[in-house]
Amino acid sequence: MPKGFHPPQSNISFITKAQYDMAAHLPQGFRAAGVHCGIKSNPQKEDLTLIVSDSPAVAAGVYTQNLVCGAPVQLNRSRTPSESIRAVVVNSGVANACTGEQGMRDAQAMARLAAATCGAAEEQALVMSTGIIGQHLPMDRIEQGLASAGSQLADSDDALLRAARGMMTTDTVPKIQGRDLMLDGREVRITGIAKGAAMIGPNMATMLGVLLTDAALTPRDAQAALVTAVNDSFNCISVEGHTSTSDMVLLLAGGAAGGPTLAGASLQKFQGVLNQICEELARAIPTDGEGASHLITIEVCGCASTEDARRIAKTVANSPLVKTAITGADPNWGRIVSAAGYAEVPFDPTGVSLWVNSFLLYKNGAPVDFEAEKVSASIRDHRDTGIVLLFSEGAASARFWTMDLTAEYVRLNADYHT
Amino acid sequence: MPKGFHPPQSNISFITKAQYDMAAHLPQGFRAAGVHCGIKSNPQKEDLTLIVSDSPAVAAGVYTQNLVCGAPVQLNRSRTPSESIRAVVVNSGVANACTGEQGMRDAQAMARLAAATCGAAEEQALVMSTGIIGQHLPMDRIEQGLASAGSQLADSDDALLRAARGMMTTDTVPKIQGRDLMLDGREVRITGIAKGAAMIGPNMATMLGVLLTDAALTPRDAQAALVTAVNDSFNCISVEGHTSTSDMVLLLAGGAAGGPTLAGASLQKFQGVLNQICEELARAIPTDGEGASHLITIEVCGCASTEDARRIAKTVANSPLVKTAITGADPNWGRIVSAAGYAEVPFDPTGVSLWVNSFLLYKNGAPVDFEAEKVSASIRDHRDTGIVLLFSEGAASARFWTMDLTAEYVRLNADYHT
Repeated sequence: MPKGFHPPQSNISFITKAQYDMAAHLPQGFRAAGVHCGIKSNPQKEDLTLIVSDSPAVAAGVYTQNLVCGAPVQLNRSRTPSESIRAVVVNSGVANACTGEQGMRDAQAMARLAAATCGAAEEQALVMSTGIIGQHLPMDRIEQGLASAGSQLADSDDALLRAARGMMTTDTVPKIQGRDLMLDGREVRITGIAKGAAMIGPNMATMLGVLLTDAALTPRDAQAALVTAVNDSFNCISVEGHTSTSDMVLLLAGGAAGGPTLAGASLQKFQGVLNQICEELARAIPTDGEGASHLITIEVCGCASTEDARRIAKTVANSPLVKTAITGADPNWGRIVSAAGYAEVPFDPTGVSLWVNSFLLYKNGAPVDFEAEKVSASIRDHRDTGIVLLFSEGAASARFWTMDLTAEYVRLNADYHT
Repeated sequence: MPKGFHPPQSNISFITKAQYDMAAHLPQGFRAAGVHCGIKSNPQKEDLTLIVSDSPAVAAGVYTQNLVCGAPVQLNRSRTPSESIRAVVVNSGVANACTGEQGMRDAQAMARLAAATCGAAEEQALVMSTGIIGQHLPMDRIEQGLASAGSQLADSDDALLRAARGMMTTDTVPKIQGRDLMLDGREVRITGIAKGAAMIGPNMATMLGVLLTDAALTPRDAQAALVTAVNDSFNCISVEGHTSTSDMVLLLAGGAAGGPTLAGASLQKFQGVLNQICEELARAIPTDGEGASHLITIEVCGCASTEDARRIAKTVANSPLVKTAITGADPNWGRIVSAAGYAEVPFDPTGVSLWVNSFLLYKNGAPVDFEAEKVSASIRDHRDTGIVLLFSEGAASARFWTMDLTAEYVRLNADYHT
């Protein structure tokens, strides 16, 4: 067993399905709005979100690695990192992906209209779209909606909530997280909103996230901080392993808190809190995944490299046999250990140990006696399931979050024309 | 479009669920038996198969790439290629995987008992096990069963059928394929049996296959021919992408047909027929996969290399979103194209075209108008679905078979203690 590793105790917290921080507020210098413009059929549901920074903000972005990507991804990629972003507009219902040149013209027009709401230039706006792919945006509705959103911009908690709701597709809860921290003697705030994996009609999973802060950052530090935070959060979740054409996470740093541009220890502290917020938002996505009855946290320890650990964790997370075992409250060590075995990472099979919800099931390459009913009950009675795999290759570790696979997931994704 | 590529016509044959060639017979020089020895609870179900070659046969094997593998895999790996194999014994119900040193002693004892039925030495027998992992073999029952099987060895079609049934777990039909061919002026036969992916209790998918021929081959040619055949057949199927600890395919060449050792054109002809039989057996596995309502054939053409094509085909095959779309008869080009996009293979997105059941849905990077109801009906009304993805990178292609993902699959694999 690697030095310093302690077998897990009952330290896996119960995470409620509603990942929504009621105490989160917009950072200084930002206003937001969420309106219904008519893309979604239900008039009670917001489908257009506008976020405005009162002064030009530093902006960073990370984008889907899918070769087939939507026009908003292509547009924002060309505009970030930046130090002059004033607006972010998000629509839900239509993804504006696989829509050719018309799609790019629509994304540009959407940015122009968003920029106009705060008197900014076209290039100072970023665009996000999520929903059905292969359809063109209803630009007349978006134009009307943006005019309406522009007149409703506010810095209230209600405005933040409506903005989070405006990016939801089949998410059942908005996802908002925030934290205040002291940096260089000033109170600074970081607030994030996200939407999760959801599929409607001829559609696919898409995750979007926007992080806002009133701290001051250089574009380079903002980009580096976002990449670091996303790497251990949004890049460590999966619903079913299908990468969307439209995934993106943006970070806007407006500097309205008034402190100096972050550096050194302050930047490190900022990074730590940004990581936390991204992790909480990321975890909320499989927690609220379609048909999910369990959030599964997979910790892989004792690997030769972080990359090895992550590859094993991801392989276990994406195994339908592991997922269905958890759905059925089945402490099926064989499915978990064998999934690790085909991750294409070399390891000594006689050095593998496994815990499920802190119960040791498998030690140094062989199953141990355990009370199956007790382990089963611990899975059945909690929404959270923790899997820990320990190897004897080194000291690197990784964590990955996924959801289980239920008949409800299949029903939701197999029903044609719903 | 690459030269020589013709968009597919309605050439996708309807494959019945029962992949069972009634005209297949044992090759000369082989006898077989399938008995119930008491591993399975139902006394009507065979759970032990014995195959004997009357003279020492050339034997080749290919094995699971899972780092965590069963004792039979380890034992056979050390004994193939060979030119002196006399017996193959297979049990179903217990996989003898993750069973430590006792497991290896049991596998060796099982080989010794099988060899004894035909007066051969211990090292002349190979062993296969499939079923629950982490349990020890009931060696007393296997010993009794092998004595019984030894007395029932026959070269009849009934014996072949019982041998195929003896390796089944939750397969619903036995899988047998055979072909007679003329080589060097003599009639030669190749016959194969296989079992498919099935999960019971704390268990996992396992595929096993045995190919028998009365042609004469060198061990080296037998091994090369088997690797070639498996590469384009059993290595191109998936049920849910979870690689078992126990997968293996064996080829035994006894030479009883009496011709010379195959070489040159005869060897090539043999290879072609072996490929066909392996492909038919392989396709039968997802066709009979648990809960399957569709067999999905994915053809990827126009790639820079076969490896690229295969990686894309496999990624599409393993996407739960693609699988559930087919379950729901949804001609969802977005899910298919976007799955290709995250296969980690570089390609020009504007050079991608897609057909489903010969209907063109997507051309040169953009969706085309198509009659969705008509395509949907073609999926709904047939057990077979064909997906063709065309790229503009080169002339390499690959084929992959998988099944759809149904609520029944989830039910079968999530039900604890059934």
